[in-house]
Amino acid sequence: MLSAVRARLQGRLLMASMTRSFSSLPAEVEEVISAASSPAPSVRPAFSHTPAGRNHLFVPGPVNIHENVLRAMQVPGQNHRDPWFADFYKKCLQDLKLIFGTKEGTTIIFPGTGTGGWESALTNTLSPGDKVVTFRYGLFSHLWIDMMQRLGLDVTVIEGRWGDGAYEDRLAEVLRADTEKKIKAVCVVHNETTTGVTSDIPEVRKTLDAANHPALLLVDGVSSIGALDFQFDRWRVDVAVTGSQKALSIPTGLAMVCASDKALQAMKTATSRRVYYDFADMLRTNPTGNVPYTPILPLLYGMEASLKLLAEEGMPNVAARHHRLAEGCRRAVEGWGLQTLCRDPRWKSDSLTVIEVPAGFDSQKVVDVAYAKYNLSLGIGLADVKGKVFRIGHLGNMDELMLSSALCGAEMALVDAGVPVVPGSGVSRAIEYWQQTSKVIPTRESLVQQQ
Amino acid sequence: MLSAVRARLQGRLLMASMTRSFSSLPAEVEEVISAASSPAPSVRPAFSHTPAGRNHLFVPGPVNIHENVLRAMQVPGQNHRDPWFADFYKKCLQDLKLIFGTKEGTTIIFPGTGTGGWESALTNTLSPGDKVVTFRYGLFSHLWIDMMQRLGLDVTVIEGRWGDGAYEDRLAEVLRADTEKKIKAVCVVHNETTTGVTSDIPEVRKTLDAANHPALLLVDGVSSIGALDFQFDRWRVDVAVTGSQKALSIPTGLAMVCASDKALQAMKTATSRRVYYDFADMLRTNPTGNVPYTPILPLLYGMEASLKLLAEEGMPNVAARHHRLAEGCRRAVEGWGLQTLCRDPRWKSDSLTVIEVPAGFDSQKVVDVAYAKYNLSLGIGLADVKGKVFRIGHLGNMDELMLSSALCGAEMALVDAGVPVVPGSGVSRAIEYWQQTSKVIPTRESLVQQQ
Amino acid sequence: MLSAVRARLQGRLLMASMTRSFSSLPAEVEEVISAASSPAPSVRPAFSHTPAGRNHLFVPGPVNIHENVLRAMQVPGQNHRDPWFADFYKKCLQDLKLIFGTKEGTTIIFPGTGTGGWESALTNTLSPGDKVVTFRYGLFSHLWIDMMQRLGLDVTVIEGRWGDGAYEDRLAEVLRADTEKKIKAVCVVHNETTTGVTSDIPEVRKTLDAANHPALLLVDGVSSIGALDFQFDRWRVDVAVTGSQKALSIPTGLAMVCASDKALQAMKTATSRRVYYDFADMLRTNPTGNVPYTPILPLLYGMEASLKLLAEEGMPNVAARHHRLAEGCRRAVEGWGLQTLCRDPRWKSDSLTVIEVPAGFDSQKVVDVAYAKYNLSLGIGLADVKGKVFRIGHLGNMDELMLSSALCGAEMALVDAGVPVVPGSGVSRAIEYWQQTSKVIPTRESLVQQQ
Amino acid sequence: MLSAVRARLQGRLLMASMTRSFSSLPAEVEEVISAASSPAPSVRPAFSHTPAGRNHLFVPGPVNIHENVLRAMQVPGQNHRDPWFADFYKKCLQDLKLIFGTKEGTTIIFPGTGTGGWESALTNTLSPGDKVVTFRYGLFSHLWIDMMQRLGLDVTVIEGRWGDGAYEDRLAEVLRADTEKKIKAVCVVHNETTTGVTSDIPEVRKTLDAANHPALLLVDGVSSIGALDFQFDRWRVDVAVTGSQKALSIPTGLAMVCASDKALQAMKTATSRRVYYDFADMLRTNPTGNVPYTPILPLLYGMEASLKLLAEEGMPNVAARHHRLAEGCRRAVEGWGLQTLCRDPRWKSDSLTVIEVPAGFDSQKVVDVAYAKYNLSLGIGLADVKGKVFRIGHLGNMDELMLSSALCGAEMALVDAGVPVVPGSGVSRAIEYWQQTSKVIPTRESLVQQQ
Repeated sequence: MLSAVRARLQGRLLMASMTRSFSSLPAEVEEVISAASSPAPSVRPAFSHTPAGRNHLFVPGPVNIHENVLRAMQVPGQNHRDPWFADFYKKCLQDLKLIFGTKEGTTIIFPGTGTGGWESALTNTLSPGDKVVTFRYGLFSHLWIDMMQRLGLDVTVIEGRWGDGAYEDRLAEVLRADTEKKIKAVCVVHNETTTGVTSDIPEVRKTLDAANHPALLLVDGVSSIGALDFQFDRWRVDVAVTGSQKALSIPTGLAMVCASDKALQAMKTATSRRVYYDFADMLRTNPTGNVPYTPILPLLYGMEASLKLLAEEGMPNVAARHHRLAEGCRRAVEGWGLQTLCRDPRWKSDSLTVIEVPAGFDSQKVVDVAYAKYNLSLGIGLADVKGKVFRIGHLGNMDELMLSSALCGAEMALVDAGVPVVPGSGVSRAIEYWQQTSKVIPTRESLVQQQ
Repeated sequence: MLSAVRARLQGRLLMASMTRSFSSLPAEVEEVISAASSPAPSVRPAFSHTPAGRNHLFVPGPVNIHENVLRAMQVPGQNHRDPWFADFYKKCLQDLKLIFGTKEGTTIIFPGTGTGGWESALTNTLSPGDKVVTFRYGLFSHLWIDMMQRLGLDVTVIEGRWGDGAYEDRLAEVLRADTEKKIKAVCVVHNETTTGVTSDIPEVRKTLDAANHPALLLVDGVSSIGALDFQFDRWRVDVAVTGSQKALSIPTGLAMVCASDKALQAMKTATSRRVYYDFADMLRTNPTGNVPYTPILPLLYGMEASLKLLAEEGMPNVAARHHRLAEGCRRAVEGWGLQTLCRDPRWKSDSLTVIEVPAGFDSQKVVDVAYAKYNLSLGIGLADVKGKVFRIGHLGNMDELMLSSALCGAEMALVDAGVPVVPGSGVSRAIEYWQQTSKVIPTRESLVQQQ
Repeated sequence: MLSAVRARLQGRLLMASMTRSFSSLPAEVEEVISAASSPAPSVRPAFSHTPAGRNHLFVPGPVNIHENVLRAMQVPGQNHRDPWFADFYKKCLQDLKLIFGTKEGTTIIFPGTGTGGWESALTNTLSPGDKVVTFRYGLFSHLWIDMMQRLGLDVTVIEGRWGDGAYEDRLAEVLRADTEKKIKAVCVVHNETTTGVTSDIPEVRKTLDAANHPALLLVDGVSSIGALDFQFDRWRVDVAVTGSQKALSIPTGLAMVCASDKALQAMKTATSRRVYYDFADMLRTNPTGNVPYTPILPLLYGMEASLKLLAEEGMPNVAARHHRLAEGCRRAVEGWGLQTLCRDPRWKSDSLTVIEVPAGFDSQKVVDVAYAKYNLSLGIGLADVKGKVFRIGHLGNMDELMLSSALCGAEMALVDAGVPVVPGSGVSRAIEYWQQTSKVIPTRESLVQQQ
Repeated sequence: MLSAVRARLQGRLLMASMTRSFSSLPAEVEEVISAASSPAPSVRPAFSHTPAGRNHLFVPGPVNIHENVLRAMQVPGQNHRDPWFADFYKKCLQDLKLIFGTKEGTTIIFPGTGTGGWESALTNTLSPGDKVVTFRYGLFSHLWIDMMQRLGLDVTVIEGRWGDGAYEDRLAEVLRADTEKKIKAVCVVHNETTTGVTSDIPEVRKTLDAANHPALLLVDGVSSIGALDFQFDRWRVDVAVTGSQKALSIPTGLAMVCASDKALQAMKTATSRRVYYDFADMLRTNPTGNVPYTPILPLLYGMEASLKLLAEEGMPNVAARHHRLAEGCRRAVEGWGLQTLCRDPRWKSDSLTVIEVPAGFDSQKVVDVAYAKYNLSLGIGLADVKGKVFRIGHLGNMDELMLSSALCGAEMALVDAGVPVVPGSGVSRAIEYWQQTSKVIPTRESLVQQQ
């Protein structure tokens, strides 16, 4: 079989000089292609041209919105004080438990972003001066630390390589040293979107348990919850935070939080000032289907539609799909001869893949040319890894063929940026894997029964 | 370079047994993937499951609708007798000339489909018993012939191989034999959507001219106009017909026709009965922005938005884009070791590619499994080539990365269907070509200036 | 109570001179109101300004589209040859029977308009030269007659006053005179949209039966079916025709037809030439969920959503709602001291109300000023009643408060046009009636239980 | 003229017994209307039925969304780190200045609600323990006070009658007493949505100036900005706050703030803890078109579309329209013989009208029956005026005919609730006024030129 491929590759080289000879294209159109004659020198504003096709969106959020969700959000103005609202909102809060993997937690929805969710997690459970322990291994963990400090918390930061996850052994040390149990919370970014790293929350939980430490476990699940396996109850998370524009695949605008009874207990004594992001106003009103201020109805409808899709798929299948997508992407990276920023297999994220360009190349060029030539939106390298990596998001509303186009686009952009990559070397690996592992879409079995 | 590829291919084989060892996926999710455990045996109705991602639409019409067009069509009910309508409709008719390549033709829009457009072309210019000459080389040319016969025309059919285009030499013979110039019209399907063949209308024109024959030239441009080069005036076409769901990339529902003065002259004596599809009612009302019956306003808005995109791109660039897309697709077919149903390079369509599966394989299985496993909609083999070919549409609102996902999906489906194709062997050829020929999207030049 | 009203009316006159004295409006804004200073003399194109609020659509089709329907139609391109389509389409045809009031009829959907539906009804059941009887009492009955004649039928026209319905006695005479039963069809426009007249199809049926006449009964139900009571089976209609933009309240583009077995029998011998609008191609393909040419998918989704709303409401309730709306409108007309073009109560349409302006006034001015000042789209007077009447459509997706705004707007426009109407004199009558007859919306009973 | 009206009213009474005698409605449908037979006793969930027509939304926010805005928001997922975003966002911030009436202020957009805007205004300019003065005259001013207290401010509350506005004399006293100028801010709710009161910000400004007091002027313009006259620069407001679902007429989700240089100066020393709602992160990133966390793109597109409509109309015309709408509504209230909660003409709001029901009646019944029978959403009485008032919102995307339907619905609901109101007594007053004061919609002048 290999020789057949080789033969075709040789044929391909031979054909290069004959390009477009097999064509009925009229002369005048040929000229357009072959001449340097791009359209008349544009004086139009930058980025104002709308190309055919579509923008290919592969950043790790905002993500592609499912057509069912887009439709559901197309609503005229509505009054959330109309009598239908209470039951609807109670159902929203109940349905939302699906993605947190909880039956016992209390879900809360704020109009806001994941950043607001962070703030709510901290201010509702902690008081200025409280000791917290956390990890820094990317921009988002860094920004959460910055917030902790600005809120007056006493933060112990365990520094990590950008590309690694939460070091459980280092955490164990810190907890062991805290003989007086002064540490009030351990804060972990579950999936670091800067680096493509998924930390191991069950191991963090075990570490806390092994130390017999009562600290709260606060988890940023912004780019994991709804995509990766998440077990709020089983892992005994105390506050978990996510945002609507990530795995839920609706537009930005909802900060979604889940709080344990222990967290709600801590709330009673936490003195951090809070009003907008106060759980208490929600807890007072939500049980009767009320809200302390105006909800974003279109996004709630979008959330409802999105949760319906996830429920229909089943959360274990959702996680399996993300794994299969990610694994295909990682094989493509191998095919290119490149490597992911995350080295340790146990931490490689199924939400996004962060790829290092070889030394001497600028990853920003890859991202720029992908957008300029192929209308492909890739994630740029942020902060410490600016220019060194680019990111492919594959979380949320995503399937194999969508992701295959991102891989094709990334290959072309890599070549454009001068990175020595053989066209097809990556995507061929991905589709081989997907072909072997993909299952028939439920309810379509009849089409392949005899095969 | 070849050896590097070979090395990677070998590595790929070695890795096959190690699948998913590089993973932090929790055990319970692993089970879902590895077990034969697909979701609980479905008792849900066939095709009722909504998978994540999107349907990947690659039939040669209906085609993918641009988001600008979708937005434009989202209108509440409106009154076409309101005073704004007249100017709007006159503009619609004027703008539409762009895709026909005409300044002198008269454009007419019927609420209907391409089939209705065919009927209007025939009944407005011909009388029962009139002699017409045409070609049969696919289902659509066949259906048009069927219509001609049912309308009482005296049809001379030049039969062709399915996969060939209009034989100009055979036409020349027929015209030469018609010494009394009894033939009233030559009817040609420009792009035969069954076979992926684009006939050469300029050559047909030349053939008519060479015979000094006054017959009308009626052209079905349903799957060409708006995608391929079309020059109504220069080619002296008399009636050209297209439909909204093809290159215009809006939903089905508009039959769009362009008529020459010669055709409108013929109308005066044509006795074929016609009312709904009568040009005359349109010609009486359209010049003042009126219509003889209710127009489909959302589709007109969609048409306006679509024509705006095409005008911005420029029709020569539109044709060049289609050629580049098609050429990439044809290289992929070569990469697979397969061939297109159309053999003669001068006839290969830039609207769609029709691919033969090797003898002994059933192309329907490829299409079925593509839909069942990858949510990919390919065109089936129709009529005489049922089971023998599958079709990839790449006309209208389409770009390289979209088409690359179709190629990836087709490769996987070919493998699933047992056709001996090496994953990546086709798509690698396409993206290599596209990388070499793609230009920067206008107004995005600043992103790649230093490269 | 009357004296209280009188007192208030007097107070109103007193207040006229004090306008805007009760106001905190700042001086600069006052100026804008009081000055002749409309915005800077516009050089913008006619009708290009988008006013706040909405267009108030009260023509008798196209009508207001329900938000559920708008949402359902928001779909990307889709392939009607995908395997899900067959069941979907069969369901469409089945569901459609609801509005025809049929179990035994065969429903057919053409991409087209009501005019196309007319053509299909005639050409599939009749042959050139066939005798038909029909009535002319408005523009639409006139246009159908024109079509009959152009199709070569031998038409006996019973002329009627514009404002009257089908004269059953005159029909009886014609049928009685046809001793050889040469008349092949009786054609009736059920609801004449020019005049606001609903003819009595059951009486027409009785007349045919009384004459023991075998003629087919062909009914134009374009502006009745789906709004008014319609009983295809019970009335033994042979072909009934409607269009999507009327009572179904979706955009224009679907011609929907229902045919009896007798009509399908007639089809076998009918020699009128037909292809696009041939029932036979539909009958051959539809039973397996196929179509002879591309369907308009978004409109089918809209139809599905609309039929779901109608089914939920229940067709008797739908007819009752239309009656209640129409009755309110008619009372408003009385309140204005005007009269409807339709004089005979048994014929007054519940789909629309056509109102005569007093002699010496131009109804076009009412319509023009309604649009110019209040963004209200009323129906103009057509053909013979141009300038004499204006029309208020209240069919389809409509409720009392929507219609009340049309009545308010019509009152203002009548005053603007110089017609001596007292503001409030009509709408007060309508809302008094509606208040007395409106019921609680199903599933909202709990809100008014103690009242 | 009065006698004519009287005569008609008498006729109306006579007709009451003859209802529906003028009808061709078939017997079976009549039954549905006349019988107590509402549809089969519903076992469906409360509020699950979707009635024909539309929900009539007349709460003072969320308000009716213009179709242009709905369309603009219909966007798939997009990446705000793509290079087009920076210019777009800078334009958003610039365009937004229109509704604040500012050239010198700095506009900031938070993903959040008006409540979040309040928090940002307070925490960015003040420190715990700071003295502020404010007024309580409704639920929203109360809630803002509650927030001030929870944020640790030292609040002096000037209590007012619910229905009155800011007492400038009382403020003057408080300021005069503050000889040490310890008061850091005066906080005023411009338009109190509970009571329909617009306080006089220019007078408040004058009061501050007269006292030569340096306190900041913080204004809640949630239900005024974009609807009523607002002059940030001229009135020397320091922070003004609004929300997207009010006059801007887009969905909830954007808290929009404008800050003066003086406010930004105060920010530097303000020690209130803040992160999510910190101006500083915005001021650091916005000037280059960046944001500190993910923006809500669909709402920004909606904002852009909405601001375009407002700019086209011109802000003075927008304020004039609101005044005309409100004045019509107030005349209707007079016509009903009722009164607005706001007594003093200078304070009557042009955003909404709050109407007292007579003693002995429950306003909640009016609101309930309006929703239950007419699908009309009115604002309920809140807090201290619960059961005593109902509210009609007429801000934002609103026109005369929309509001007329609310008046009609309110009349019917008042009658249903037993309040002695004569049908038509209010709406007749409103439309008489509107007919006299409405102007031709720009660019439609040609329709009425000869009139």
